Amino acid sequence: MTDTVISSPKKEVVIGFDRPFCIIGERINPTGRKRLAAEMAEGNFATVEADAIAQVEAGAHMLDVNAGIPLADEPAILARTIQLVQSLVDVPLSIDSSIVAALEAGLAVYQGKPLVNSVTGEDERLESVLPLIKKYGAAVVAISNDETGISEDPDVRFLVAKKIVERAADHGIPRSDIVVDPLVMPIGALGQAGNSAFRLLRRLKEELQVNSTCGASNVSFGLPNRHGLNGAFLCMAAASGMTSAIMNPLHSEEMAAIMGSDVMMGKDRDCRRWLAKFREPGQEGAGGARGDRRRRRA
Amino acid sequence: MTDTVISSPKKEVVIGFDRPFCIIGERINPTGRKRLAAEMAEGNFATVEADAIAQVEAGAHMLDVNAGIPLADEPAILARTIQLVQSLVDVPLSIDSSIVAALEAGLAVYQGKPLVNSVTGEDERLESVLPLIKKYGAAVVAISNDETGISEDPDVRFLVAKKIVERAADHGIPRSDIVVDPLVMPIGALGQAGNSAFRLLRRLKEELQVNSTCGASNVSFGLPNRHGLNGAFLCMAAASGMTSAIMNPLHSEEMAAIMGSDVMMGKDRDCRRWLAKFREPGQEGAGGARGDRRRRRA
Repeated sequence: MTDTVISSPKKEVVIGFDRPFCIIGERINPTGRKRLAAEMAEGNFATVEADAIAQVEAGAHMLDVNAGIPLADEPAILARTIQLVQSLVDVPLSIDSSIVAALEAGLAVYQGKPLVNSVTGEDERLESVLPLIKKYGAAVVAISNDETGISEDPDVRFLVAKKIVERAADHGIPRSDIVVDPLVMPIGALGQAGNSAFRLLRRLKEELQVNSTCGASNVSFGLPNRHGLNGAFLCMAAASGMTSAIMNPLHSEEMAAIMGSDVMMGKDRDCRRWLAKFREPGQEGAGGARGDRRRRRA
Repeated sequence: MTDTVISSPKKEVVIGFDRPFCIIGERINPTGRKRLAAEMAEGNFATVEADAIAQVEAGAHMLDVNAGIPLADEPAILARTIQLVQSLVDVPLSIDSSIVAALEAGLAVYQGKPLVNSVTGEDERLESVLPLIKKYGAAVVAISNDETGISEDPDVRFLVAKKIVERAADHGIPRSDIVVDPLVMPIGALGQAGNSAFRLLRRLKEELQVNSTCGASNVSFGLPNRHGLNGAFLCMAAASGMTSAIMNPLHSEEMAAIMGSDVMMGKDRDCRRWLAKFREPGQEGAGGARGDRRRRRA
């Protein structure tokens, strides 16, 4: 199946249907974080540094880096942030901006093969972003909306994703370098948001054979017990074919949900990561446990 | 889509693809509960009574009733237990035994339309259980194994399920009265147990169009943090088409997973049950919350 390879100088991460679910840390993003925005604008990267290290320690396989600060020099700040984060942690990065010049500034300084977040299905965006993806040999997040907006119909979104994959091919970019974002809406506003996402994710896997990602916490916007809802969503999305998510790795419920889904899909060999995380110290030496389970499996 | 109707004199429960996930309480079962087995054998039903009430209070839509006590008069005890439970709670029951005479004794006293748990694909079982299902107008759990045992291949299990549905039709039992149990194995022993179950559940929904159930906690046998794994499994199984489970409704993690999966599948209208369960008292009066979510849904 399709493998999307992202790398830093020291680490390679593969997003794929037979790979453990890829956790992309979302924290380095000033959107909705006033204090962080102010810090970054004045050249104070203390919070960025702390967030980078904490997210990797919590289990993030990649980090998303966004520097979207109103009225600031986003290309310069994004490039500086990427260099800083790459000097601190080994995981590959996702370069996140809606401004093409910022994406290019980030690409110019990135060491390795990054994920670029993102391109939409709008012609003008495709023609400005795809040449950059090709030039720098990057992978790209493809958002399934176009000039007509975000359709509520998952089959329309599928066609937008298909268009992006085809346009990328015209630019010499293989489908393995496209990671589609199905654009998950808040379920509290749109009761079919989950079903739409799951249907689209199944089609992306089975028909288009492309990897997928999304901003997972959006689904629970405005509702109580968001971690519980996010965990349910992540498990169901993984079962439907989603292979990565941009999320907060510091939340233990979501992380347990992802680890559980990896166990359930046979992606955590011999449940090693699950056991390492949840086995009580006293159970450590119980080497017979696995044998017991085998004998009693009927 | 297929609706399986189960009833008591005062309540009707519908298991179906467009219905909330049906929670069948598993507690009234002496298997592995020594004290309960001893109590039931000597005619003490205090624990049965407490378990019946507690499970319904915790949100069970149905209760499974099993009286499998070695060397005891299982038909008599099962019939008595069913009568007792029906006198205490309004929810419909699942009559659970591997002994045909016990199923018949339970059917003879049950008031309403029960679920019978279970029949396998073995010819001898089919020919002894299906006439009872027809005679009493019940629904039945169909376990996807046969004379050759439990196949690890989900497509072989699908064929067994198909055989049971066809044989039932020969007896005048519609597919809407069949609830297939895909037989989920412990994932700690069989790494493909989840993938097999999900594949089979998808085929049961899409091709055979039958409802499904399973003993959900079996999947986590022998592993730590079982509630976390069970919750992940339940969400993924629901996303794959499973419409009910025999489970412990007293475990809050599994219940939250099911409630979350109902929200995600648009089966909890306006998230009412989720809000009723998890909204903080202070949020109660915030009538604008829903409007906010709608406005901000993009």
